[in-house]
Amino acid sequence: MIKTDILIIGAGPTGLFAVFEAGLLKLKCHLIDALPQPGGQCAEIYPKKPIYDIPAFPEVLAGDLVDNLMKQIEPFQPGFTLGERAETIEKQEDGSFIVTTSKGTRHHAPIVAIAGGLGSFEPRKPPITNLSDFEDKGVEYIIRNPELYRDKKVVIAGGGDSALDWSIFLTDIASQVTLVHRRNEFRGALDSVDKVQELKNQGKIKLITPGEVIDIVGEEKVEGVSIKQGADVYNLECDHFIPLFGLAPKLGPIADWGLEIEKNAIKVDNSLDYQTNIPGIYAIGDVNTYPGKLKLILCGFHEATLMCQSAYQRIFPDKRYVMKYTTVGGVTGFDGSKKEAPKAVVKAID
Amino acid sequence: MIKTDILIIGAGPTGLFAVFEAGLLKLKCHLIDALPQPGGQCAEIYPKKPIYDIPAFPEVLAGDLVDNLMKQIEPFQPGFTLGERAETIEKQEDGSFIVTTSKGTRHHAPIVAIAGGLGSFEPRKPPITNLSDFEDKGVEYIIRNPELYRDKKVVIAGGGDSALDWSIFLTDIASQVTLVHRRNEFRGALDSVDKVQELKNQGKIKLITPGEVIDIVGEEKVEGVSIKQGADVYNLECDHFIPLFGLAPKLGPIADWGLEIEKNAIKVDNSLDYQTNIPGIYAIGDVNTYPGKLKLILCGFHEATLMCQSAYQRIFPDKRYVMKYTTVGGVTGFDGSKKEAPKAVVKAID
Ligand SMILES: Cc1cc2nc3c(=O)[nH]c(=O)nc-3n(C[C@H](O)[C@H](O)[C@H](O)COP(=O)(O)OP(=O)(O)OC[C@H]3O[C@@H](n4cnc5c(N)ncnc54)[C@H](O)[C@@H]3O)c2cc1C
Ligand SMILES: Cc1cc2nc3c(=O)[nH]c(=O)nc-3n(C[C@H](O)[C@H](O)[C@H](O)COP(=O)(O)OP(=O)(O)OC[C@H]3O[C@@H](n4cnc5c(N)ncnc54)[C@H](O)[C@@H]3O)c2cc1C
Repeated sequence: MIKTDILIIGAGPTGLFAVFEAGLLKLKCHLIDALPQPGGQCAEIYPKKPIYDIPAFPEVLAGDLVDNLMKQIEPFQPGFTLGERAETIEKQEDGSFIVTTSKGTRHHAPIVAIAGGLGSFEPRKPPITNLSDFEDKGVEYIIRNPELYRDKKVVIAGGGDSALDWSIFLTDIASQVTLVHRRNEFRGALDSVDKVQELKNQGKIKLITPGEVIDIVGEEKVEGVSIKQGADVYNLECDHFIPLFGLAPKLGPIADWGLEIEKNAIKVDNSLDYQTNIPGIYAIGDVNTYPGKLKLILCGFHEATLMCQSAYQRIFPDKRYVMKYTTVGGVTGFDGSKKEAPKAVVKAID
Repeated sequence: MIKTDILIIGAGPTGLFAVFEAGLLKLKCHLIDALPQPGGQCAEIYPKKPIYDIPAFPEVLAGDLVDNLMKQIEPFQPGFTLGERAETIEKQEDGSFIVTTSKGTRHHAPIVAIAGGLGSFEPRKPPITNLSDFEDKGVEYIIRNPELYRDKKVVIAGGGDSALDWSIFLTDIASQVTLVHRRNEFRGALDSVDKVQELKNQGKIKLITPGEVIDIVGEEKVEGVSIKQGADVYNLECDHFIPLFGLAPKLGPIADWGLEIEKNAIKVDNSLDYQTNIPGIYAIGDVNTYPGKLKLILCGFHEATLMCQSAYQRIFPDKRYVMKYTTVGGVTGFDGSKKEAPKAVVKAID
């Protein structure tokens, strides 16, 4: 059982910054995310795109924003349970919570902060009837470890950036890369499209367009896919089939936790601390709703900050926390690190 | 008369970022500040100190934070009335406001956003009975234009960073610099103290410690100061006397505008849009108060953002604004500039 002070569900920008604000209050955090990496929408959907409305950044790439946040929270040594979805929550007699993931990992904390954004990202699956029979037996929707594909025959399906980028990446690792797409046109960054064209010309990527995978071939595991191209249907031998049709967020299991839901988001008390209708459970960032709510990164930062203050009061009802500016008090990490502003000296001139 | 969409009182980080959020909504802003430069507390009190809790900045100097904000808002061409204090406000029949400064400059806008921080910064004045008789006749509390002191004899009083730094700076401009301080010890950045020591040794700064200016000498304007050193009292000839004992913020005239005040701050509706009890007047950043309020820069950013949305609705009650992410919609400045993320291409591979 993983134990922490604030259990954060969702490692997007809001959840990450909550770690920092909690750390200033000497509270430890652990984050759960369904995705294999932290960063939420910024990391998953648009890491290479610039954001212009992060305060004091005239421009910042979404991926760099996440890197900066990871660096900022480093001294507070957050724990991560990645690639697992928070599935159930049980309130304990002492008011604390146990949250269990899709893989059965259990987490125990007095405070739960849901920073789940638009929900946990789930892959969009193509309508192939026997697809689910082969999940984790050669069918993968997310590439977690490229080494899995070393010297293997791989079929990728899709027409967007991730299909393009992974096809390019895997040419150096897999023994054969085939890219199947329903149209001739791909939609992605110009240099990715051009690179795939080049690799195709060199014979390093086999392109099947317009075409569609309509069946998986195999007994215990994937041995090939059945492809429909115009009127033709034929089998292609392969070890892995990777459909990359994007990820769609789903509020998912959290919707059944007894929280007040409105417009697919969790209602919170924005007049005080972004707490939900269940005391001890907060909702911050894109996942919450209140009058005037804006789904912006900078708003999540503020909500995370006020949430941490309230969480502190719940955990230590008898302590009175006196806020100190970081410039004045510095930042002391759980790893013993200390950052602080150079102090003024008092010195005689003679 | 200066006309604008949102008149912002206070050019600290909160007021500056409000310009950006207003600009995204195509609303123009004008800022009034009592200080000669934008940046509020960050620029005036601790420009060279690092802040650690600005989201996605593991560390940023307060002065750099202000520079970044100025750069971020540049496309929206805000107007500035600097070095003047907002003194009075008059509500017009059409619901708009006219705000007049200490120097009589008038500003007209449908929306007023008070981002006044802890109040307008007013110099701490030493208890010299005839001091006020010489204000602007050789006595200055803030150095606005160093050229004023070219080839003049200057006496500076104080023992902190600004007394040290201006004494150093003016040695190159004034014909004589004298620094008077009640103690031998100075309190400031180590290199400033060391530099003054060096300039004193070279005879470029005349140091009088422990000593005190107790009277101003002169008819129409400053001709000298009277100095008490131990039991001795003597006159020192000079053209300017500059007491630099720091600035203290005072809510000041805003306290008399009919706004609900609590704990020296303006009460706002934090459950919606940070509006005050007077419709059309908002209060954002350190200057406001509500349950759970934290006087942090990142909170001011959020408050400014929600305020702008509400202001937009007041100005255009019939338009429905659909928020667009900056990453998706880009940023179009009033100067015709346009920043936007590179678009995905749709391109065939053959
Ligand atoms: C193309 C695009 C452009 C954008 N541009 C801007 C912009 O310019 N400015 C701006 O401010 N915002 C922009 N946004 C919005 C911004 O990305 C979001 O506001 C921000 O990501 C919200 O952060 P968050 O941490 O609240 O949630 P998210 O980033 O959505 O992260 C939530 C995380 O929670 C995880 N999660 C959810 N439920 C569970 C569960 N049950 N178990 C485990 N994990 C779970 C998800 O997998 C996800 O990783 C843009 C969004 C997109 C898609
Ligand atoms: C030493 C120090 C360290 C700090 N460290 C941190 C930190 O680490 N993190 C953090 O988040 N915050 C920190 N703060 C607090 C932070 O600086 C404030 O939260 C921030 O400056 C508030 O911004 P603001 O724009 O609301 O107000 P301010 O920065 O106070 O700006 C308000 C401006 O309004 C002007 N004004 C007021 N009334 C009038 C009037 N009637 N007419 C004209 N002008 C007027 C003032 O002159 C001033 O320039 C620190 C503060 C200090 C002093």
